[in-house]
Amino acid sequence: MTANLIALDWGTTSLRGYLMDAAGSILERREGGLGIMKVENGAFEAALDQFCGDWLTAHPQARLIASGMIGSKQGWREAPYCPCPAGAADLATHTIRVPLTGGRHLTIMPGVSCVDAASGVPDVMRGEETQVFGALPATGSHVAVLPGTHSKWVWVEDGAIVAFASFMTGEVYAALTAHTLLGRLMKLDAPHDAAAFARGVAYGLEAPQALLNRMFSARTLGLFGQLAGEALPSYLSGLLIGSEIGGARAMRPTDAHPLLLGSADLTARYASAFGVAGIAVAAGPTDSAATGMARVMQAAPRTAN
Amino acid sequence: MTANLIALDWGTTSLRGYLMDAAGSILERREGGLGIMKVENGAFEAALDQFCGDWLTAHPQARLIASGMIGSKQGWREAPYCPCPAGAADLATHTIRVPLTGGRHLTIMPGVSCVDAASGVPDVMRGEETQVFGALPATGSHVAVLPGTHSKWVWVEDGAIVAFASFMTGEVYAALTAHTLLGRLMKLDAPHDAAAFARGVAYGLEAPQALLNRMFSARTLGLFGQLAGEALPSYLSGLLIGSEIGGARAMRPTDAHPLLLGSADLTARYASAFGVAGIAVAAGPTDSAATGMARVMQAAPRTAN
Repeated sequence: MTANLIALDWGTTSLRGYLMDAAGSILERREGGLGIMKVENGAFEAALDQFCGDWLTAHPQARLIASGMIGSKQGWREAPYCPCPAGAADLATHTIRVPLTGGRHLTIMPGVSCVDAASGVPDVMRGEETQVFGALPATGSHVAVLPGTHSKWVWVEDGAIVAFASFMTGEVYAALTAHTLLGRLMKLDAPHDAAAFARGVAYGLEAPQALLNRMFSARTLGLFGQLAGEALPSYLSGLLIGSEIGGARAMRPTDAHPLLLGSADLTARYASAFGVAGIAVAAGPTDSAATGMARVMQAAPRTAN
Repeated sequence: MTANLIALDWGTTSLRGYLMDAAGSILERREGGLGIMKVENGAFEAALDQFCGDWLTAHPQARLIASGMIGSKQGWREAPYCPCPAGAADLATHTIRVPLTGGRHLTIMPGVSCVDAASGVPDVMRGEETQVFGALPATGSHVAVLPGTHSKWVWVEDGAIVAFASFMTGEVYAALTAHTLLGRLMKLDAPHDAAAFARGVAYGLEAPQALLNRMFSARTLGLFGQLAGEALPSYLSGLLIGSEIGGARAMRPTDAHPLLLGSADLTARYASAFGVAGIAVAAGPTDSAATGMARVMQAAPRTAN
């Protein structure tokens, strides 16, 4: 098979590469630590050569596309946000092309923005939209959940992202455990405690509007000996994820089963939280970022390789 | 007038002393940095002498009482929590007496605990209950709000604390600004911005259940140039306080006007947030900790001085 696309999922801390054929099948994949924070002095082309110079040489006709923070202000070049509603063709229109030495180009995907109509408050994502396009069918109503430092809930209608919301769940967990009183009683290196996690999920789900109060239970349950230090991190994680699910479900009520996209450990944790909430979920396909880039590239005009 | 009570509001970082007469009037007050964290090797009696040895010498008949973290595990001696409902007589019953050199005693106030009936989750406070007893009348339905690192909402019926809830608002604000992405765009030393604060309060109040999402607006409003770095700290503070008020009001709906107890700057900030919510508040009396200790001392049996 002939490779005709090199797709790069290029984030803050990691870089994943996919060599793909015309049918969108993955011929080869690789992963490295060359996230944009590791690239010094803007030497992105050198980083690209280092990461996949062999692919570039072996497949001179292959087009190149990248998605994620590589298109941010801190990345190679800024690709402005594509506003919602955003379908594959809209994203393709908002891609930018960076010329490379030797006459090739790198297409960089835009992020996506949306604005809450009532408050005028914007939200942004960069990279997650590509996974959503790779994972979701082009018709019907869907919601994708991408857990992480900043979890994203993405609502899709007939192949277009109509709204999304960021939840700072992962980063808040890290800040609370490392920099507040809640961390004091915790054994942070303890293995995941499924029962404590489920208890936290239920408590968070029950009253997400009282999160600033309910999180204090991660101290008092320890003080009163109801949860051991080993169980408290899982409990707090569950409480925050339960609050996220409760808050997000109230935003845009839907009967659609959430599709979970992300690393195996985080999606498993979220799947178990959705289970506590009585909400059935589906697991997304792997390599959805690569599939998403291939779809957008098909929608993009082919001006040059 | 003869001093017959030395009352100490002895917290983690500060120590306030009040010399009082039999009518509960304050004859003298002083304040120092001798919080329990500053007292080394458990040398609390030496700290007491250093802080108010002159009072002890001049008023040998005066009784001594202390409230706050001095009664915690990290303090002089642990005074167990008094469970809710807790009136002045209940608190008096739960005081402990620490013998001092020379035959006097120091009475230490207990903290107060409550347990959420549905979930079994406990909550605790230590020191705030004393201010509440000093500030609230002995009859009627009241709610007191004590803003701080861990804000307390305290519901009182006919002079007894029937329930309370801690909100980690202040500590979460500190952790988010210092240890998450939200701090990046902020000018943390900027003066208070009342308009940005009010906007944050309104946004937090509107959907406290989506706090993990809404807090992300403290980044995106900066990214999109809608709020300057100088305005973002006030905005986030408002958003968290708005979420606290929204969540707390849903816990125990009441028509009572909240009574605000605390430092002038914090109670002013909360009063303006309650104003955005359309909720009238009353300002509590100053020195309510001293008044509260005098009230509990009146309810305590006088076994010795």
